[in-house]
Amino acid sequence: MSTKKLRVGVIGCGAIGREHIHRLMTVVPSATVVAVYDYFEEAAQKVAAAYEGIAVFPSGEAIIESEAVDAVLVATTDDTHAGYVMHCLDNEKYVFCEKPLALTAPECEAMLAKEKAIGKRLIQVGFNRRFDVGYREMKQAIKEGEIGEPLMIHSAHRNISQAPGFETDYAITRVAIHEIDITRWLLEEEYEEVQVLTVKQSRRTTGDWLNPQLVMFKTVTGQRVDVEVQTDGAYAYDIQCQVVGEDGTLNLPDPAKVWKRTNQSFSYSLTDHWAKRFIESYDTEFNEWAESVVADQLVGPSAWDGYVSCVVSDALILSRKTGVPEKIKLVEKADIY
Amino acid sequence: MSTKKLRVGVIGCGAIGREHIHRLMTVVPSATVVAVYDYFEEAAQKVAAAYEGIAVFPSGEAIIESEAVDAVLVATTDDTHAGYVMHCLDNEKYVFCEKPLALTAPECEAMLAKEKAIGKRLIQVGFNRRFDVGYREMKQAIKEGEIGEPLMIHSAHRNISQAPGFETDYAITRVAIHEIDITRWLLEEEYEEVQVLTVKQSRRTTGDWLNPQLVMFKTVTGQRVDVEVQTDGAYAYDIQCQVVGEDGTLNLPDPAKVWKRTNQSFSYSLTDHWAKRFIESYDTEFNEWAESVVADQLVGPSAWDGYVSCVVSDALILSRKTGVPEKIKLVEKADIY
Amino acid sequence: MSTKKLRVGVIGCGAIGREHIHRLMTVVPSATVVAVYDYFEEAAQKVAAAYEGIAVFPSGEAIIESEAVDAVLVATTDDTHAGYVMHCLDNEKYVFCEKPLALTAPECEAMLAKEKAIGKRLIQVGFNRRFDVGYREMKQAIKEGEIGEPLMIHSAHRNISQAPGFETDYAITRVAIHEIDITRWLLEEEYEEVQVLTVKQSRRTTGDWLNPQLVMFKTVTGQRVDVEVQTDGAYAYDIQCQVVGEDGTLNLPDPAKVWKRTNQSFSYSLTDHWAKRFIESYDTEFNEWAESVVADQLVGPSAWDGYVSCVVSDALILSRKTGVPEKIKLVEKADIY
Amino acid sequence: MSTKKLRVGVIGCGAIGREHIHRLMTVVPSATVVAVYDYFEEAAQKVAAAYEGIAVFPSGEAIIESEAVDAVLVATTDDTHAGYVMHCLDNEKYVFCEKPLALTAPECEAMLAKEKAIGKRLIQVGFNRRFDVGYREMKQAIKEGEIGEPLMIHSAHRNISQAPGFETDYAITRVAIHEIDITRWLLEEEYEEVQVLTVKQSRRTTGDWLNPQLVMFKTVTGQRVDVEVQTDGAYAYDIQCQVVGEDGTLNLPDPAKVWKRTNQSFSYSLTDHWAKRFIESYDTEFNEWAESVVADQLVGPSAWDGYVSCVVSDALILSRKTGVPEKIKLVEKADIY
Repeated sequence: MSTKKLRVGVIGCGAIGREHIHRLMTVVPSATVVAVYDYFEEAAQKVAAAYEGIAVFPSGEAIIESEAVDAVLVATTDDTHAGYVMHCLDNEKYVFCEKPLALTAPECEAMLAKEKAIGKRLIQVGFNRRFDVGYREMKQAIKEGEIGEPLMIHSAHRNISQAPGFETDYAITRVAIHEIDITRWLLEEEYEEVQVLTVKQSRRTTGDWLNPQLVMFKTVTGQRVDVEVQTDGAYAYDIQCQVVGEDGTLNLPDPAKVWKRTNQSFSYSLTDHWAKRFIESYDTEFNEWAESVVADQLVGPSAWDGYVSCVVSDALILSRKTGVPEKIKLVEKADIY
Repeated sequence: MSTKKLRVGVIGCGAIGREHIHRLMTVVPSATVVAVYDYFEEAAQKVAAAYEGIAVFPSGEAIIESEAVDAVLVATTDDTHAGYVMHCLDNEKYVFCEKPLALTAPECEAMLAKEKAIGKRLIQVGFNRRFDVGYREMKQAIKEGEIGEPLMIHSAHRNISQAPGFETDYAITRVAIHEIDITRWLLEEEYEEVQVLTVKQSRRTTGDWLNPQLVMFKTVTGQRVDVEVQTDGAYAYDIQCQVVGEDGTLNLPDPAKVWKRTNQSFSYSLTDHWAKRFIESYDTEFNEWAESVVADQLVGPSAWDGYVSCVVSDALILSRKTGVPEKIKLVEKADIY
Repeated sequence: MSTKKLRVGVIGCGAIGREHIHRLMTVVPSATVVAVYDYFEEAAQKVAAAYEGIAVFPSGEAIIESEAVDAVLVATTDDTHAGYVMHCLDNEKYVFCEKPLALTAPECEAMLAKEKAIGKRLIQVGFNRRFDVGYREMKQAIKEGEIGEPLMIHSAHRNISQAPGFETDYAITRVAIHEIDITRWLLEEEYEEVQVLTVKQSRRTTGDWLNPQLVMFKTVTGQRVDVEVQTDGAYAYDIQCQVVGEDGTLNLPDPAKVWKRTNQSFSYSLTDHWAKRFIESYDTEFNEWAESVVADQLVGPSAWDGYVSCVVSDALILSRKTGVPEKIKLVEKADIY
Repeated sequence: MSTKKLRVGVIGCGAIGREHIHRLMTVVPSATVVAVYDYFEEAAQKVAAAYEGIAVFPSGEAIIESEAVDAVLVATTDDTHAGYVMHCLDNEKYVFCEKPLALTAPECEAMLAKEKAIGKRLIQVGFNRRFDVGYREMKQAIKEGEIGEPLMIHSAHRNISQAPGFETDYAITRVAIHEIDITRWLLEEEYEEVQVLTVKQSRRTTGDWLNPQLVMFKTVTGQRVDVEVQTDGAYAYDIQCQVVGEDGTLNLPDPAKVWKRTNQSFSYSLTDHWAKRFIESYDTEFNEWAESVVADQLVGPSAWDGYVSCVVSDALILSRKTGVPEKIKLVEKADIY
């Protein structure tokens, strides 16, 4: 084991930021947090007081520019992601950015151009599902040919509740975005066209957004993907994914919970929250990120992946309004991806 | 138990006809076969020789018109169904017709008009899945409100092989027709529009038809249904159906097969043929049909159901050519249905 | 199909007798009931009135001796089984006897001697589980070597309730007797010693019998079997059987019931009654019995099987009192078994 | 989070010792290793070189006596456990000892007496299964009354292979010892008598030890436990545990692995090694141990638990030789446990 740890600066000390800081300090042996900044200075001060060796910085830019910081973690509000990430690129510093990478596709394109000019990847985007053991086992099985060529994916994203202020588009940009990414990753194909189909609405929705929605993808080789998106009132937090190949199917398994036989039924419990379902994937995500930065060779989700998810989200939201499938048009993909 | 049995005349002594005759003679106590006809007289003679009390008739029409026959079973080639069924209606005789009820929607419409004029149902169509215990348990659970209002169905029809001469359209008219019917029956809704989506093709297909196809239904209340149709080369004969409601989901279970733990895996076998999967549903189908005819009150799949499946099949085939969803337009539904 | 049906006379028209008569008349095409007798004549009259072609006889002996009867079904109270069966043997007539074959081992031994003298099997005992598809699939898998040599069986027999008058010994003679037989049949071994172990008692027991009990078998080759016997208050009627071999295990699967996802759990229902669990095995049992009698070659559970279950039951009941394992001593097995 | 870490000294730098050191250094934020000793000094030197802040000590005793060490981890060969643990007690120092706590019951009794004299617990024994999420979920469900009073446990411990030099008794002392402990923990009862039953032997055993063995426990309240112990040649590393209560059963679930449908079967893989199955339980074990030592209040498996497992192991080994159940006689349990 190397005794030199990756020195991470964290911009944003809200709930998700604090969780990642705790993770970096306790379960990521190859990294340590040395700098924090938050719009609310008190939040940053609290974090610094809770751990040894963390300094509060006056701005995110100061963290990015500091020689005492090897890599940056951006965990601020969505609208500030692009600015911080670009500043990291300007300083040729590694940056881990929570999804979304940016609010618009042009912002992502600027990052792609910049990384291409630099000649290597510096950005990793927080698509944590790629680090989930179940999805990884599925991808491994596909690669080993266990189901032949993949032809379709049937998937579902079912949530019990949403934070206040939820809107119809968030079902794409904050919920289905996970399926936008993980499906591409499983199939190793880009999308040709995508569509949102309206569906009979659930009376369990607590706000005025559309719920559920049915999302459809078609890849450039003709693979079809259907994603049921329930954002509110579902029976559990339940993520289902079935890859259908020529020779068989693969399903994400349910998490292992005690099998019960009571009251004339067999049962086991399902989780009620994404944090319980995917907690381990975050640990793996940051361990692998830190190790890849130390090795100076990023392997996790890239700026390209963040860009594609942005383009696809836009097309899906447009499709819901036009009522027809929308084509996906991507810029040229650089060799570094 | 009544000592008077329903006297059935069977038109068509091919494989499916013989199987139904055997069923009526051995596991349907309230019915007995008394008359048979086949285009190849030898086939009819063989059947008559194998059982007591079965007479060979010179034509299907002779069976239909005979006072010794209470009800008719039509198990001939698809193109002759409509003619025999209409002749039964002309003679006001109960008739069980294997699917499809007719080759064209107008033929079905003529039957609907005739039954309406007679004032009661005489036709039952052979949609056997409605008699499967799994589908029935699902429908019962829906009716009891276990999943709230149904919003979507995800289903799959996967076959290992097809008889020679199979064509792309048969994936609708002979395969997905089961899902066309069972979905309407589960949801108790008609379709508003339907579509066939092209999908990346399986290299396991042994002929030159399209395989797989992805079929989509939208009901008049906006429920969405996706049906994956694999007609050849699948890993098993596997029928999957998941009804998604506001409060939960229901899945057709796998048939009960021995659970094995060997070679570092848990496994159980899946069936390779529809006959193994649905054999019991046929027994129930004919028992209930015979009892309902004896009671002079049909309750099984009606001419209306046969008509709708014909209209929907036509629309799906058209949709595959137009590339867009096709609307479903139905004639007025009579009170008798 | 043969047009000649096996003419069956039924002694005993109680609940189980009537059920078997209905089965023989409706789902067993190769047999028909022609004669019935019951201690309460009215019960026999009712049965005769319900079907065509059934005559009421003045006694069980009259049925056995009648030339109009090809085979006899004994469905009377346990204490009369031995007498009727011996009378059948005296008349060299096939007889199907519900379990137990007799109340005592010496009575069974007399039957064995008689059948040996006759030189062929005439008796079949009603161990219906041998006709269950699940157990048959397990036996087939064992024979095909899927788990290597069987070494152990872990099984459980769990009941929700018992009829009034239930006693501790009945947990062996009426409940675990199924496991006594099916285990021998699966392993194709006789027992060397057996034991009942006392267990902490369930407060759900509605009477004053011991519940649960833990039953242990050891076969002559050293295979060990544990049978958990819950006779009252269990969560369901649930039969579990796991055969452990050198190379794997086999489990009886749960019956196929709809898979539900509701209220943060996955679940499916379990049955509450043996009749729902094993109904199909009875149909198969009588079909195969009738066909084997017509073929003049019995293949189902024999007098030897009935004898062994009687000896083992006695030893288990003794073991509960002595507190130690009891040896199983069997008479010589004739070649006809 | 406290900034002061528990300073741990590790005696024994073999495979298991090194694994625990890595764990303490990387996933246990509240502890750090500061001292190591190994009989082979080079092993200790290698460890010290791999991490910052670890010193090599000249003896285990030196570690135990050092003021720079807050707590000791004993990961040496089994025969040296008792000596080091007693030396820790003499120095009133917290000690985590891998199982077994000692080779003989009298050695354990001396520890119990010493802890009682000290007036508080200092010893924790490495029964890692108590930290497995599955077992914990089962215990929680029992406590919440989901299955009423527990009456029986059916369990199995199946291994694929053993290290060279394996012996028959190790099936108890190194394999079934996990079930000896976890069963007591689940039931919160002591054993009254225990027995090993001989079983037909597997031809897959690679050495000359007895395999399988069937282990039986009876608790003081009459609960019965059967433990199938396969030490070699099993189909997988598979741990099964079913707790049977008055109102239902609870089963350890299989680990979550991708569900596959291929080749006419449904399947998922099982693990081949205990490390894959229980790796997370070790992480939890050491996190909770470190936190409880820091809080000066041990809660994990105690010297009493180590003592009981020693007594029960001895009785089981004796039982295998005597062929009868052996009584469990324990010394008085002090209030501190």
